[in-house]
Amino acid sequence: MSKEITSRADDYSQWYIDLVRKAGLADYSAVKGCMVIKPYGFAIWENMRDTLDKMFKDTGHVNAYFPLFIPKSFLSKEAAHIEGFAKECAVVTHYRLKNAEDGSGVVVDPDAKLEEELIVRPTSETIIWNTYRDWIQSYRDLPLLINQWANVVRWEMRTRLFLRTAEFLWQEGHTAHATAEEAIEETRRMLDVYATFAEEWMALPVVRGIKTANERFAGAVDTYCIEALMQDGKALQAGTSHFLGQNFAKAFDVQFSTAHNTLDYVWATSWGVSTRLMGALVMAHSDDDGLILPPKLAPHQVVIVPIPKPLEELSGFIEQTAAALRARGIRVKVDNDDQNRPGFKFAEYEKLGVPVRLGIGARDLANGTVEVARRDTKSKESVPTEGLVDHVVALLDDIQRNIFERAKAYRDEHITPVDSWEEFVHTLDTKGGFVSAHWDGTSETEDRIKEETKATIRCIPLDNVQEAGSCIRTGKPSTQRVLFARAY
Amino acid sequence: MSKEITSRADDYSQWYIDLVRKAGLADYSAVKGCMVIKPYGFAIWENMRDTLDKMFKDTGHVNAYFPLFIPKSFLSKEAAHIEGFAKECAVVTHYRLKNAEDGSGVVVDPDAKLEEELIVRPTSETIIWNTYRDWIQSYRDLPLLINQWANVVRWEMRTRLFLRTAEFLWQEGHTAHATAEEAIEETRRMLDVYATFAEEWMALPVVRGIKTANERFAGAVDTYCIEALMQDGKALQAGTSHFLGQNFAKAFDVQFSTAHNTLDYVWATSWGVSTRLMGALVMAHSDDDGLILPPKLAPHQVVIVPIPKPLEELSGFIEQTAAALRARGIRVKVDNDDQNRPGFKFAEYEKLGVPVRLGIGARDLANGTVEVARRDTKSKESVPTEGLVDHVVALLDDIQRNIFERAKAYRDEHITPVDSWEEFVHTLDTKGGFVSAHWDGTSETEDRIKEETKATIRCIPLDNVQEAGSCIRTGKPSTQRVLFARAY
Repeated sequence: MSKEITSRADDYSQWYIDLVRKAGLADYSAVKGCMVIKPYGFAIWENMRDTLDKMFKDTGHVNAYFPLFIPKSFLSKEAAHIEGFAKECAVVTHYRLKNAEDGSGVVVDPDAKLEEELIVRPTSETIIWNTYRDWIQSYRDLPLLINQWANVVRWEMRTRLFLRTAEFLWQEGHTAHATAEEAIEETRRMLDVYATFAEEWMALPVVRGIKTANERFAGAVDTYCIEALMQDGKALQAGTSHFLGQNFAKAFDVQFSTAHNTLDYVWATSWGVSTRLMGALVMAHSDDDGLILPPKLAPHQVVIVPIPKPLEELSGFIEQTAAALRARGIRVKVDNDDQNRPGFKFAEYEKLGVPVRLGIGARDLANGTVEVARRDTKSKESVPTEGLVDHVVALLDDIQRNIFERAKAYRDEHITPVDSWEEFVHTLDTKGGFVSAHWDGTSETEDRIKEETKATIRCIPLDNVQEAGSCIRTGKPSTQRVLFARAY
Repeated sequence: MSKEITSRADDYSQWYIDLVRKAGLADYSAVKGCMVIKPYGFAIWENMRDTLDKMFKDTGHVNAYFPLFIPKSFLSKEAAHIEGFAKECAVVTHYRLKNAEDGSGVVVDPDAKLEEELIVRPTSETIIWNTYRDWIQSYRDLPLLINQWANVVRWEMRTRLFLRTAEFLWQEGHTAHATAEEAIEETRRMLDVYATFAEEWMALPVVRGIKTANERFAGAVDTYCIEALMQDGKALQAGTSHFLGQNFAKAFDVQFSTAHNTLDYVWATSWGVSTRLMGALVMAHSDDDGLILPPKLAPHQVVIVPIPKPLEELSGFIEQTAAALRARGIRVKVDNDDQNRPGFKFAEYEKLGVPVRLGIGARDLANGTVEVARRDTKSKESVPTEGLVDHVVALLDDIQRNIFERAKAYRDEHITPVDSWEEFVHTLDTKGGFVSAHWDGTSETEDRIKEETKATIRCIPLDNVQEAGSCIRTGKPSTQRVLFARAY
């Protein structure tokens, strides 16, 4: 167990923060609520971003870039949106500083006050739909399938690295369609893209579902989501895809002439995932020794550590092996640094979550073998140099699968159907995870349950089984179970 | 000539703006000074960014991400830096809005005033060096070779799409070194990376040089730059690389223990290019019909237009040709849209600057030929279908080379050595371009020349010939010529 990292059993929250900091993913900054994403963390984010970006392009989307600032009045144009977003945000009021008269530094120049304050974007629906008004005239301009990678700011009093920070990085897709059906189809398509990414790349099993009115995006008709479970039994919303109806088109007067020469408001979607996924990745898989990264997203998939030193004949074999792995598309790091001992390096790469470690020593090599260690199970084996590359390639696949299966087994064990209030509270308090229970469908009951237990409805799973039952809290009739959980 | 686009002869400035807007590169936004980068423009920027990113990584750099906001007091810590940067910037003073009492919308909540104002980063030296203090203890932590892709804001009263906007996108490298020599070497290395990128990818010939004190980055010991020439004879600074000495290390108290167990301040560099390069790309090559894009950066390198319609046998050949080109790594667009005639499409792709256009018609195909048009010279030829793919691949190389050679010929013709003040002013007024002249080395003379002619010293070219002469303005002795120009 790493001495730098608090154990999960001792303090899960502190374990997470220790891990994020000590593994070089991110750190606090001098600006309250803002984080620094460190190179190793950013390399993982780049892999996520590039993978998602390709998935977006493969589904017909293009990237663009819209302004960082939003005029204050824009936020008020969509009634629900303002309620959800306008409250905690960074407000730019001035555009100039000047030297302080007492020579103490600089002060805000009172003569440089903006006529209308600018808000640092908390999300970009308003500025984008204001722009779309100029871009969309006819059905032939539709659909518009645009994505943006950007930083956004939502002022937060209580922050946690990656999970909740004032500034974070994300992508936001904003699409425009001629019909409601097409927009809903897009909303679902992007939810599927997110689910595929979470499961196949992050090795993170997710439930696809729809949000209740309470948890819906401010301005959306429907919010779809993917929900994941962390090792402490708390849920984490990993991505959302919103069907916005004609709400923003009406707020910003975006109409188009249809194929039948009538005028109609444009139908919209928006969808996003953020650096929050970094937090999910860490919390879903890692252990007390450090990160456990899925091979598909790991900056280094294989690390080669010479034992004890890179002798002449050793370094030839090492370079050859690294080249052969790279030729197979594997990201390989060779650690020839001779300042640290192999044992120190082993612990270091465990902390960094490198999926496969090859320990290459002269004695093993003389016997025609190499020590292969896998991070997920911490098991080691002696593998013949003959066929080593094939072995490692297959092993990476196996690790990717194993991490997913392990997380899925945990998740599946932690979906607990309950039929009484007592059982509901008991399950939340002792076992955690998702609690599958009947609910009467009202916001009031949802609020009441949240107040009493801190659990919220994470989602109504898609393709949910319809069954008669009675609400866990009020006993009123219900037609289906929903998933409750305490959540990040 | 495109009717939408003003000709260069009529109004060069308006030609540029028309082109940027009509070719779908960027547009003004509802936020004063901020632009929207449209999908086609962003696709070009993505190609630039990905190419540069690879070049940075190949020279040992890694990416990271630092906060958008900088505490106001940080800007004052480096004396020269504050003078250069703190004046025109976006100032965040509040962190919350609230509903207006009269129900008219939202207003800034006066209770949510920040204790210390935050500046939206105009550049990140201060916040980054404040962070490096925690990251650097020993010579073994050096060098630190970090780059960031980010948006920055410098409040500008007079803006021009891409060339000067309040918000723009850029990369900023910030490296830390144990010795001055190593930092200077890094500064020069990155200047070379920029020059290679400009010449080999953007087809933009550049002069590598060093800035005079007047034009130096605020806080730098030396600023190196690459300077390009636009078609209207004005110069454009395309990238800068700064040797910062120990200025920021001293301002933020970043010391390290050397290999000899002494304490020293860390040596620094920073270097950046921005979306301004998009403006340079447009202005260096394009004509009155639209963009001319270098093949290496064009989103579509080849467009295939069926004539008149994609008949059955036509579409088989088209798909086959597109697939064969894509297999050679060429970005191909097939325009099967049947709403517009070929002539309309031809003009459209000329406007978009697609380097090669294949017109494929049934009659030509029956004769075993295809019409191949190149955008740079607007020439067309009939090419046998046999060997077509090889022909196109070679043609793209030829276009890339031709665009560069054409820009270089223009640039070389527009470096004019002059030896009298009269000749200097006359050259600036009639011919434009770089004027190579002796200067007495003082800021006063440079200021005076700028005031009288609007020309500034763009750079002292690297490896400049040393020759005795007398200053063009004061007649005082000088040891070398420098390059003057009016500039963007």
